[in-house]
Amino acid sequence: MHALKNDLLLKALKGEAVPRPPVWMMRQAGRYLPDYRKLCEKYSFFERCQTPELAAAITLQPVEQIDVDAAIIFSDILVVPKAMGLEVQLIENIGPVLPSPIQTEKDIARLHIPDVKDRLHYVLDAISLAKKELKERVPLIGFAGAPWTILCYMVQGKGSKTFDEARAFCFQQPAIAHRLLQMITDTTIAYLKEQVAAGADCIQLFDSWGGLLGPEDFHIFSLPYSQQIIHALKPMTPVILFAKGAWFALKEMSETGADALGVDWCIKPETARKLTDNSITLQGNLDPAKLLAPVAEIKKGVKKMLTSFGKDKYVANLGHGILPNVPVEHAKAFVEAVKEFLFQ
Amino acid sequence: MHALKNDLLLKALKGEAVPRPPVWMMRQAGRYLPDYRKLCEKYSFFERCQTPELAAAITLQPVEQIDVDAAIIFSDILVVPKAMGLEVQLIENIGPVLPSPIQTEKDIARLHIPDVKDRLHYVLDAISLAKKELKERVPLIGFAGAPWTILCYMVQGKGSKTFDEARAFCFQQPAIAHRLLQMITDTTIAYLKEQVAAGADCIQLFDSWGGLLGPEDFHIFSLPYSQQIIHALKPMTPVILFAKGAWFALKEMSETGADALGVDWCIKPETARKLTDNSITLQGNLDPAKLLAPVAEIKKGVKKMLTSFGKDKYVANLGHGILPNVPVEHAKAFVEAVKEFLFQ
Repeated sequence: MHALKNDLLLKALKGEAVPRPPVWMMRQAGRYLPDYRKLCEKYSFFERCQTPELAAAITLQPVEQIDVDAAIIFSDILVVPKAMGLEVQLIENIGPVLPSPIQTEKDIARLHIPDVKDRLHYVLDAISLAKKELKERVPLIGFAGAPWTILCYMVQGKGSKTFDEARAFCFQQPAIAHRLLQMITDTTIAYLKEQVAAGADCIQLFDSWGGLLGPEDFHIFSLPYSQQIIHALKPMTPVILFAKGAWFALKEMSETGADALGVDWCIKPETARKLTDNSITLQGNLDPAKLLAPVAEIKKGVKKMLTSFGKDKYVANLGHGILPNVPVEHAKAFVEAVKEFLFQ
Repeated sequence: MHALKNDLLLKALKGEAVPRPPVWMMRQAGRYLPDYRKLCEKYSFFERCQTPELAAAITLQPVEQIDVDAAIIFSDILVVPKAMGLEVQLIENIGPVLPSPIQTEKDIARLHIPDVKDRLHYVLDAISLAKKELKERVPLIGFAGAPWTILCYMVQGKGSKTFDEARAFCFQQPAIAHRLLQMITDTTIAYLKEQVAAGADCIQLFDSWGGLLGPEDFHIFSLPYSQQIIHALKPMTPVILFAKGAWFALKEMSETGADALGVDWCIKPETARKLTDNSITLQGNLDPAKLLAPVAEIKKGVKKMLTSFGKDKYVANLGHGILPNVPVEHAKAFVEAVKEFLFQ
C-alpha cells in the first residue's frame, strides 16, 4: 500500500533495525517558523486549522524547511471537545479558553458523541490533502489528546500548571468523570480511525497532563482510556503514547500494545529503557529549552541523547514541543545532528 | 534549650521512633482559612508579611484551628529576590510578578547580597514573635526557596508551567547563571541562619521547580546550591529539602545531609522509600486535590498513605500546598485521620 520513500519512522515503530533513528519534533509545524508566523498574522487559529489548504501547507513546512523524517498534521487536541459540543477558543499567545467548562452531571448533558466525519471533516480533509502533497516523501502522523488530558481542559476551562480542578472533579464525582472519559474515548476512537482512513500513517496520543495524576489515579482515570484507544487502533496503525511526566507508569504503558512511548526530558534515557525492560520503541527527549543554547551545545546534547537511547527502537525528538522563540537554524541543527551521528 | 510540648516533628526529622507521625500541611497558613481571608481583605500580601504581628497571628492560625503538629512562618520565598534588589509584586489571585527580570550579565549588576538582618528583619521579627506566641506548643518551621527555584522567578519574571526562559537562561549563559545561583545561595545561607537565631526550630528548603530540570541539569543548576545551604545549616538545625518533581534525584538528595526529603503525590511511597534505601525521613504526599473529595475518601487516602510510608522516619503532609478552596472541615479531617491512625 505504502510506497514511502522515507519509512524510518514506521520501521522504528515496528522495532525493526534502521540505518539511523528517524527524527521529528513535537510542534514542528509551529511559531518558530517565519512562514507559519506570517499565516498567523492573516488567519486565526481555527481558520488555519479548519482550512485544509492552510493546514496542509503548515504541515509540510517543517518537512520542506527542516528536513524532518515525518510530518504531523497541523491541528489541536481541543478540536475533540469542540466537536462534542463545548465552546473552545484558542487565543493567540494566551492559550485555550473553554468559557463553559464541565462541572456537574448536568453539564455532561450538553455534550454528545459526534459524527466525526461530519464535525471533524476539516481535519480529515487536511490529512488527505497533506498526504497527497507529501507525495510519500515521509510518513504523516495523525494525533489526538488522551481522554484524561481532554478532560483536564473540559473541566478546568483553560490551561493550568496543575489542573487542580480537573483532579478534584475526578475525586469528587468519580462516576461522572468516568462517564465523561468514556464519551471522550468513544469520540477519539472514531476520530482516529477516520484519520487513518484519510491517510495518517501512524497516530500519536498526547497525554500531556498524565503526569499530574498520582500513580494510582493515573491507573484509574488515564491509562484504561488510552488503552481502549490503542486496542481499537492497533489493527489499523502504529500508535505512539506520550504521557508527559508519567515516568511511574512506563512499565504499564509498555504493556498497552502501544508501538512506542514518548518520554519527556526529566528522565534519563537509561532509566526509561530500564523501566520498559528495553522492550519498546522510545521517543524523545531533549529538553526543548536546549534548542536555545548555542549550536555546539545542541549537537553535544543530541550526541549524548543518541548514545544513551541507541540506534534501534528509537525515535529522536524533543521532550516536549519546540518553543516558539527557537531560531530556525537551531531546529535545523537538531535534525542534522541526529542524521549525522555515527553509531559505534 | 527547647522545652517543646510536642516535639514529634523534630523527633521524626532525627529519625527517632515516635508514637505516631507528626502532621502539618504546606501552605497551612493560607486562603482556605476564613480568618486568613479576612486579613487579606484588609491588608496586602506584603503588609501581612512585613507586619510581624500579622505574620505571627497568621502563622498560629492553623495550630489553633486545625491542630497541626508544627507551625511554619507565614512569608514567601520571593522575599529573597526582593531583598537582593529586584522588584517583586505579589498580586492577589494572580501570583508573583517581577517587572524587571534578570536576562543578561548587566542585570546581575543590579543585584547585591544584602545584609539580611536589615533587609529581612521583618521575617526575623515575625519568627521571634510567632515563637513567643506559640509558647513551645509545637515547633516553628522557617523556610526559603532553593536557589534554582528563586532563579526561575528572577529570570522568568512570573509564574510559569515550565519556566522555559529560566532553563534557557541556564543553557545559554551558564557562567552567569552560576554567578546568580551563588549570590542567591550566599543570601539564603545568611538568611536561614538568622531565621534559626530568631527561633526557627527547623528549616524547609522549597525547590518547587526542581523537577523541571532534566536529571543532569538538576545536578548542575540545582543540587550543588541546595547542598551548600544544607551544609551551612546542618550544625544548627534540621533541614527538610523538598524538590517537587525531582524523583530522579531522591537518592542523591538523601546523601546531601538533609534530615528529610519532601515528596509530591506523583510517586508511590514505596518507590520513594526504595529510591532512598529507606535511609531518610520522608515527608508527604497526599494529592492536595484529594482534600476536596468527601471526608470518607480523605480518611481512606490518609490510611493508605500512612500504611505505605510507615510510622517512623515519616512526616505526614500533602504532596504540595493546600488548595485555597478546601473546606476547613476537610483540612481538619486530614489532620485527625493522621492522628487517629493505628499502626499495626
